[in-house]
Amino acid sequence: MNERVYQPIEAGDPADDLRMFRRCLGQFGTGVAIITTRSDGQNAGVTVNSVASVSLEPPLVLWSISRQSRSFGAFQDAPGFAINILSKDQIELSRHFSSSAVHKFTGVPSRNGHHDIPLLDGAVAHIECSQEAAYDGGDHVIMIGRVSRVSRYSGDPLLFVQGRYVVAADHPDVDATTAANGTSAPPQIAVDSALIPLLFEAHYALSAKFDEHRRAEGLSRTVARILAILQDSPGLTAHEVARKTYIGIRDAEDALAELCLKDQVVRVGNGDYTLTQAGRERREAIKRRWLDFQSEEMSGISQGELNAASSALSKLLANASCESAL
Amino acid sequence: MNERVYQPIEAGDPADDLRMFRRCLGQFGTGVAIITTRSDGQNAGVTVNSVASVSLEPPLVLWSISRQSRSFGAFQDAPGFAINILSKDQIELSRHFSSSAVHKFTGVPSRNGHHDIPLLDGAVAHIECSQEAAYDGGDHVIMIGRVSRVSRYSGDPLLFVQGRYVVAADHPDVDATTAANGTSAPPQIAVDSALIPLLFEAHYALSAKFDEHRRAEGLSRTVARILAILQDSPGLTAHEVARKTYIGIRDAEDALAELCLKDQVVRVGNGDYTLTQAGRERREAIKRRWLDFQSEEMSGISQGELNAASSALSKLLANASCESAL
Repeated sequence: MNERVYQPIEAGDPADDLRMFRRCLGQFGTGVAIITTRSDGQNAGVTVNSVASVSLEPPLVLWSISRQSRSFGAFQDAPGFAINILSKDQIELSRHFSSSAVHKFTGVPSRNGHHDIPLLDGAVAHIECSQEAAYDGGDHVIMIGRVSRVSRYSGDPLLFVQGRYVVAADHPDVDATTAANGTSAPPQIAVDSALIPLLFEAHYALSAKFDEHRRAEGLSRTVARILAILQDSPGLTAHEVARKTYIGIRDAEDALAELCLKDQVVRVGNGDYTLTQAGRERREAIKRRWLDFQSEEMSGISQGELNAASSALSKLLANASCESAL
Repeated sequence: MNERVYQPIEAGDPADDLRMFRRCLGQFGTGVAIITTRSDGQNAGVTVNSVASVSLEPPLVLWSISRQSRSFGAFQDAPGFAINILSKDQIELSRHFSSSAVHKFTGVPSRNGHHDIPLLDGAVAHIECSQEAAYDGGDHVIMIGRVSRVSRYSGDPLLFVQGRYVVAADHPDVDATTAANGTSAPPQIAVDSALIPLLFEAHYALSAKFDEHRRAEGLSRTVARILAILQDSPGLTAHEVARKTYIGIRDAEDALAELCLKDQVVRVGNGDYTLTQAGRERREAIKRRWLDFQSEEMSGISQGELNAASSALSKLLANASCESAL
């Protein structure tokens, strides 16, 4: 927490403002999972972020399905389901299973688990369940699964936080205390060649300061990205905006609606979104501000040092980008 | 997904191996929340990561409480509860409310919400609920809350993934597509002074390659960190190991138990954990491997370039670490 007064950005009764309610819920980060099942000889699958552990003994987990979902009937009738926890490389699969596509499984590599329920390749875990109970949850139904088998795979989980698809990063404080930990945090190295640890530290410090500036301007990452994308590519559908910005489709739609209310974005003839003059001006102001900020951060570094540093980092980048010999 | 064969690291019936079950569940990332309530004039609070959204209309959320929890009775009797979604600066508060401390609220800044339930300062959201239903969930009870008021605050949410406390980072692919987005991703800048974007790119590439190496060695981040910490500070309790490594207490206990089984860690007289000779050797091998790896990555960079780059990055770091003028 910083030292500014601790005051909400927004607050109220969720019944009065569903978008605000969703933004508040989005503060609780989650993984992303595709729940699969098989019923009447047909596969069904939906993307959710409402998975939660429940019990160790007996082993129980839960998730919620919308009563409006086209797959609702399939999940009600099926003897069980599988939770496929997605890896960071599966954003497109996440979008695909949250779309209204009819043949969702075509071309999606999978194997069959219990009850012939498909287990999707590339997931970082499969949690196979028999249906234990289904509880009322308003416009959703809470599905309780008894876990019969679990499988864990290598890889980094995909995360969904504040409406964006993200990945996990070490906590910024971790480096000071476990600098020599042999993880992705800067590993210890002889002082005269400490370029890599220095690079990690500088990255953390700059990221934090960029974020502080953005926040001080009252600018959310979501809105900043949407303005940038619409300036570069005017005339996009909400789905295209979501895809290009790594934002969830519902969050993109919410943000676009808010930007339309502020007259910074407008829907043109075919329904596509584009920046208004006011939107373009806001975007230009943000951009100028960031460029000024960067110049300021680089003050005191001579041109010679800049050139040498750029050359060294370019080589590091080229080395690191090489196909690993593993 | 990389091109190696897609095979599980571990798999089986959760009833046969609770630690494996927990590791599989840990693949689904979550936020961290402290649930607070007030019953019989007493405050109660517990840390959980089992929060999930349920319904928009009516607005419902859920979380689960262990039947063994000392606060179980308080939550059963209370008219409602508040979900305090923690920010990245609240790891110690998370640990505090998952401990067995008796006076958990002493010295913890809060204000009173509905039903005089404490809302903790520094949270990134408060979700105030009246108790709607409580469902059986094996060794836990699933609490359903009807949301009466939400508040959202500035800040980055704390996340818990694969047993570790982490923060969100932009998806690694985001930079290529939205390079000019004015967020923490590298902002666009004139080419002759592109040091900062280059620094961000090099950081991402090196992080990814470090991780790939770690994974190829079958080494989890959790185990790597525990070995490092126990080498630096022999003789620690499980709580001390957890705190110093940013690992959850239960996950630290699980990993220490596994390391004891492998004879790499041993409990000494007073119960503290320390490395065995085999543990020290493994740690040394990991460290050597990382140092070799770094030297390799820096090959082709002259000493002059290294020095200039280190100097430039040091200045960047010093600038970025300055108290912001905001």
